[in-house]
Amino acid sequence: MRHTSLAGTACPVARTLDVVGEWWTMLIIRDAFIGSRRFEDFRSLGIADNILSARLKRLVEQGVLDKRLYQERPARYEYVLTEKGQDLLLVVGALATWGLKWTPGVNQNRMRHVQCGHAVTVRGYCEHCEQPLGVDDLQVVRLERAAAS
Amino acid sequence: MRHTSLAGTACPVARTLDVVGEWWTMLIIRDAFIGSRRFEDFRSLGIADNILSARLKRLVEQGVLDKRLYQERPARYEYVLTEKGQDLLLVVGALATWGLKWTPGVNQNRMRHVQCGHAVTVRGYCEHCEQPLGVDDLQVVRLERAAAS
Repeated sequence: MRHTSLAGTACPVARTLDVVGEWWTMLIIRDAFIGSRRFEDFRSLGIADNILSARLKRLVEQGVLDKRLYQERPARYEYVLTEKGQDLLLVVGALATWGLKWTPGVNQNRMRHVQCGHAVTVRGYCEHCEQPLGVDDLQVVRLERAAAS
Repeated sequence: MRHTSLAGTACPVARTLDVVGEWWTMLIIRDAFIGSRRFEDFRSLGIADNILSARLKRLVEQGVLDKRLYQERPARYEYVLTEKGQDLLLVVGALATWGLKWTPGVNQNRMRHVQCGHAVTVRGYCEHCEQPLGVDDLQVVRLERAAAS
């Protein structure tokens, strides 16, 4: 099933979803952060092989995962997050922060601060005021076409 | 097309995607933040009416949008973000932060700090150390089943 492409739209949210918005894709990326690298590792998601193949292929094409040969005969590949892929950690973290608050269930995966080991949340942050913000401090605005860049 | 339900999984990322992971859903939520309230407003996404109806219905069922009567004859409804829905702003913001950095295009929508008007980014934040973190300071860990709560 091929969706409308959002790659050319004038919104960074839509363009991001064009890369990572397919069903399963963000869970593949989550698992890559936890340490999955090989096709077999990602299979534990319970995803059909043909869909997993298609999702991995697209993430490699988009530069989110790097495909590396780790065994020659037979040829076997592993998938490693690129810098572009690593930057998706905040998307994973934002999904986790919301899910911890609003969905009931066991929480097997946690995002933590490497240096102190405490749990990390995802926050809006104003670089100008140098302070973390609450949801009430944030506003999404649509710029006029002339002002958009 | 009905996917595997992720509602009962032991990961807050997966449970969040169960609510908001369908194609178009995050764009409906983005538009709700910008001010879309009526069915006609959301139609400007270019989404088919039957899919838009299904997505709005599910978001109401999940408590993300509140459906309110705004006209009696004929009955017309509008859709407003609940508190649970408002909290998705950081998911929208994380998608936008990544898209601004990694996808080329015009950026029509911006998230800004209400008080100062400057652009806001989404960051990991350690409440314990009271500091914003870079991606290198963050780690996703899978807890042992006994330690998960």
